[in-house]
Amino acid sequence: MKLNALFLNCTLKNSPEVSNTAAFIDNAEKIFKNLDVKTEVLRVSDYSIKFGTSSDEGDDDDWPVIMEKIKNTDIFIIATPIWRGDRSSIAKMIAERMDSIMETDNRENGQFFTYNKVGGVMVDGNEDGAKNAISRILFDLGEQGFSIPVNAFSYYVGKAGPGKSYIKANGDKHEFTNNMLFLMAHNLMHLAKTLKANPYQTEVKELEKKAKKMSE
Amino acid sequence: MKLNALFLNCTLKNSPEVSNTAAFIDNAEKIFKNLDVKTEVLRVSDYSIKFGTSSDEGDDDDWPVIMEKIKNTDIFIIATPIWRGDRSSIAKMIAERMDSIMETDNRENGQFFTYNKVGGVMVDGNEDGAKNAISRILFDLGEQGFSIPVNAFSYYVGKAGPGKSYIKANGDKHEFTNNMLFLMAHNLMHLAKTLKANPYQTEVKELEKKAKKMSE
Amino acid sequence: MKLNALFLNCTLKNSPEVSNTAAFIDNAEKIFKNLDVKTEVLRVSDYSIKFGTSSDEGDDDDWPVIMEKIKNTDIFIIATPIWRGDRSSIAKMIAERMDSIMETDNRENGQFFTYNKVGGVMVDGNEDGAKNAISRILFDLGEQGFSIPVNAFSYYVGKAGPGKSYIKANGDKHEFTNNMLFLMAHNLMHLAKTLKANPYQTEVKELEKKAKKMSE
Amino acid sequence: MKLNALFLNCTLKNSPEVSNTAAFIDNAEKIFKNLDVKTEVLRVSDYSIKFGTSSDEGDDDDWPVIMEKIKNTDIFIIATPIWRGDRSSIAKMIAERMDSIMETDNRENGQFFTYNKVGGVMVDGNEDGAKNAISRILFDLGEQGFSIPVNAFSYYVGKAGPGKSYIKANGDKHEFTNNMLFLMAHNLMHLAKTLKANPYQTEVKELEKKAKKMSE
Repeated sequence: MKLNALFLNCTLKNSPEVSNTAAFIDNAEKIFKNLDVKTEVLRVSDYSIKFGTSSDEGDDDDWPVIMEKIKNTDIFIIATPIWRGDRSSIAKMIAERMDSIMETDNRENGQFFTYNKVGGVMVDGNEDGAKNAISRILFDLGEQGFSIPVNAFSYYVGKAGPGKSYIKANGDKHEFTNNMLFLMAHNLMHLAKTLKANPYQTEVKELEKKAKKMSE
Repeated sequence: MKLNALFLNCTLKNSPEVSNTAAFIDNAEKIFKNLDVKTEVLRVSDYSIKFGTSSDEGDDDDWPVIMEKIKNTDIFIIATPIWRGDRSSIAKMIAERMDSIMETDNRENGQFFTYNKVGGVMVDGNEDGAKNAISRILFDLGEQGFSIPVNAFSYYVGKAGPGKSYIKANGDKHEFTNNMLFLMAHNLMHLAKTLKANPYQTEVKELEKKAKKMSE
Repeated sequence: MKLNALFLNCTLKNSPEVSNTAAFIDNAEKIFKNLDVKTEVLRVSDYSIKFGTSSDEGDDDDWPVIMEKIKNTDIFIIATPIWRGDRSSIAKMIAERMDSIMETDNRENGQFFTYNKVGGVMVDGNEDGAKNAISRILFDLGEQGFSIPVNAFSYYVGKAGPGKSYIKANGDKHEFTNNMLFLMAHNLMHLAKTLKANPYQTEVKELEKKAKKMSE
Repeated sequence: MKLNALFLNCTLKNSPEVSNTAAFIDNAEKIFKNLDVKTEVLRVSDYSIKFGTSSDEGDDDDWPVIMEKIKNTDIFIIATPIWRGDRSSIAKMIAERMDSIMETDNRENGQFFTYNKVGGVMVDGNEDGAKNAISRILFDLGEQGFSIPVNAFSYYVGKAGPGKSYIKANGDKHEFTNNMLFLMAHNLMHLAKTLKANPYQTEVKELEKKAKKMSE
């Protein structure tokens, strides 16, 4: 059974505008395909996502569509451009909506449906902010149920100032960034496979009771 | 063969001053011991650690002692108090010294010696700053070779303002914090065991070559 | 001539849903009114703001309406709830749109229209994340043309975990938070007045030439 | 009466090792001198500073020496290298020690001695992390009593990866960085002068009473 990987492209740009983050994802997909991992990319700005923290905010909210795709993936990667030294507002909006993972559709043992899935991060910008964006996203993924393999991220940034972005800077040929992409893909694949065969035994509901008792 | 867990207490306080972070770690140790995991705690301020990024900064630098302990642990947990809404300067100093992991003693395939170890984070403060501290530390652990299981952190903070810290606030009885401790311990243990049995196959040196080729 | 203060409420909630951030702003307004400062509050979610970084993203984009209000205020305060230990996605979206300040309608000397205005920040949440949100917003305000007086922010957060938010926690009676509100209001007022009477003499365009020469 | 500016160089390197941050500061000093501002640079690693948050941690703690210099300056600039996408541990240590400002030697009206001083930030690194470092430092300066003029920071970073640092990269000729330095120096000078002539009237102790009353 093939593994699959889902990328969320959190660019601020609407289709068909050219997205640097999309070009960066292209490069990652090549590596995953060589590893026989099936890939899918969603550009969040192509969907109508409402602000909020619930699983469905009504009014033609497209979030349930994305949620369903997250449910069905093994590997989940948030890809965001940098704006103001931080992830995009769309990436933050997604993080907020993903809070609903922690409240809906839990398994009998209390594990969120994301338990045993793995997460990674890709960040690109013309300058400074990648590590900050990655840090925030890793925290969110970890709390929302994903495991993070070693070296599970890649980024591209240029020199200080309003310089070239990924495409014009030939980021697809930036060796440091590509090296991280290879590590990210291989490690995500390994951990996804390993957790599929060896899922967490954590009894979340039992532990809630133990915590309650410990706190009396 | 028993798993073992190493905690670094990054309090600013020198022994024998009472450390809230030490009390928080006490609670975590209880849970690990029930899981039959051997624990060890180092209070960084008891050692003479030099500022820098190398594996040995000379002049009676104690860093090699800590490095050796990291080498021999399966589970590694950074525990830090919050100061100014951020991890302590000692926690940051440790993160800088741990950069030497990426340069020394790599295995034949290029994996740092931390590959196949797992990492977690504990943060306590009288108020605000835990999630920021956790985010930064997760990024560091991930880059420096550790895998991060789902829900691999716990924190305690009080209300806005100069209120009680962990001990006086009875943080050891704060259910939310204890619940996270249980999840953290169980998930760290599971992933440590699983990676021991199924280590990463990533050929870091081979991937460097592939990245070079992709970037030509 | 009366000073005026503009608050942007960056809650994720649509009117008429109750907003904790709105309640927090209410308390701040009382103080400003006693100082004879005229106040206005915009709830961003009541407007149709497009994602992007330009001054007008077309398609009934309401950003120009808000931009005009920013142009006419002396004191500008970003108020945001905390989600995931960080400012709201709406607060981030606003920060991105405000980048257009740096490109449009500059004065002859090159100063953005915000030069000589002052900025402050208010953050509320049920738990952890205020200082991180404030840090990011202060950086944005500083780069986008505002001056930041001493003690120019206030926040409310509760204990770790899913506890009460501002209204239910009686945040309006939390002394530490109110103390910061008083300092914030008095210091913003003082600096706004002082800069009105003593505007920056900075010749931005001249300095660009000097920087160019220094860099040859 | 001449204004003066104090720079704290928070490099991890001990004298006489070459510091990129020192070279960056050199460039800033030139600009200040042309503005007839007297400058002084302290390299923190040349002093014996203890970890802690008090004004004197005993045992030949050199912090009181630095504190005295802060008391006597009009313009205060924290300059830090980037390590791990964040300010240096020495910069964080300084931020912790500066908490003592809020507890010692307050004026009759309760203002810290830093009220009416202005603060700026300089950050250099071989890659990514400047805006994160600046954000954290601006927050600290603002809370610890400094006012922040518009465009009060400058930074240099290179492309993603282990590239050249400030000196080897000829950061002193990087136009974007120099442009920020000019703005920073001019705006700091203007605000320092303006606040000297028009100090905050804020009655901190009175406002504490008002906050208490508002919170009953």
